[in-house]
Amino acid sequence: MTTSADLRRRHASTWEAAVGHRFVDELGAGTVADPVLARYLAQDALFLDAFVALLGAAVAGADRPGPRMVVARQLGLVAGDEDDYFTRALARLGVVGPAEPLPPTAGFLALMDDARRSADYATAMTVLLVAEWVYLDWAQRLGNAPADWLHAEWIELHRGPAFAAWVAFLRGEVDRVGADEDAFARAVELELAFFDAAYG
Amino acid sequence: MTTSADLRRRHASTWEAAVGHRFVDELGAGTVADPVLARYLAQDALFLDAFVALLGAAVAGADRPGPRMVVARQLGLVAGDEDDYFTRALARLGVVGPAEPLPPTAGFLALMDDARRSADYATAMTVLLVAEWVYLDWAQRLGNAPADWLHAEWIELHRGPAFAAWVAFLRGEVDRVGADEDAFARAVELELAFFDAAYG
Repeated sequence: MTTSADLRRRHASTWEAAVGHRFVDELGAGTVADPVLARYLAQDALFLDAFVALLGAAVAGADRPGPRMVVARQLGLVAGDEDDYFTRALARLGVVGPAEPLPPTAGFLALMDDARRSADYATAMTVLLVAEWVYLDWAQRLGNAPADWLHAEWIELHRGPAFAAWVAFLRGEVDRVGADEDAFARAVELELAFFDAAYG
Repeated sequence: MTTSADLRRRHASTWEAAVGHRFVDELGAGTVADPVLARYLAQDALFLDAFVALLGAAVAGADRPGPRMVVARQLGLVAGDEDDYFTRALARLGVVGPAEPLPPTAGFLALMDDARRSADYATAMTVLLVAEWVYLDWAQRLGNAPADWLHAEWIELHRGPAFAAWVAFLRGEVDRVGADEDAFARAVELELAFFDAAYG
């Protein structure tokens, strides 16, 4: 069994609780209440900067040119499309200015910042893998996206062949260079706590 | 006078020798000999990985979200378009496999690697500024690009509004956070030596 598959198996109950969360069901059905989505996205927007910084650290720290280039291209996409979605979605939901980070957000920011400052490629890739793979998993289990772009785009940003290939790449890298299991476990728990926090 | 303007003034003779180099004239006229261009591009391709890594370090180390996102977007472009040009150009020129780094290349790789490992945003931005600004300067002084894509694309990659805005951004960041003059001086000298080396 690969490292990534083994880690996911060892943390399956928390993983499945995140992937099967009420928030995901409601997002897929297009019924998530605006204040819940606003609360969630305002928190998630706080990550974007730390996430981009962590991708930068992975680009700087990659041990081979090929993977470095793959991460660099993804970084360009994240800084483009995802940033754009946040701007439009937060404007429509009437969220003004940055939110105060809730505890799971603060925990995730600390985890990403630790990984970035470690300058350790394996740790950076482990945290990125959890963040992306959990999202691919929940987005892929949903059926056709709802009509409203506010819900649909957030789903489609996290599935489809390009995003699936990105997650497969992250798995391959973690399988190749090794994982930081502590960081993996913390990240999965924080993903679950993050969905919970959207409901206040 | 701004920091960037002052630095360029203090290193003007080396700077102008690079920008006014015979290689640039021949590239602009479409008369650069294939073996010269092959030698130059094979060396320049050796930078791409270190350059992308340095951009990653700047993304990781930026002190503000706005500039971080600007560098991240540029990183996506470099990893996309520029990588693609190298692949096609080296194939057409019959360059197989990576070259051995010539002394100026080795010097530049060491400078970029030092800047990356320093994890110092100001140093990273100083090296990036020289690398990009010298190129903007020589590309802008040329007239209409020659017909052959092999020459034209290399010129157009380094001028035009988007690239000029990127260099203006780098200048603004160096003016804001300060420069590493030592790194600036080394980089300008290496740019000049790099063009010289194309002629063997």
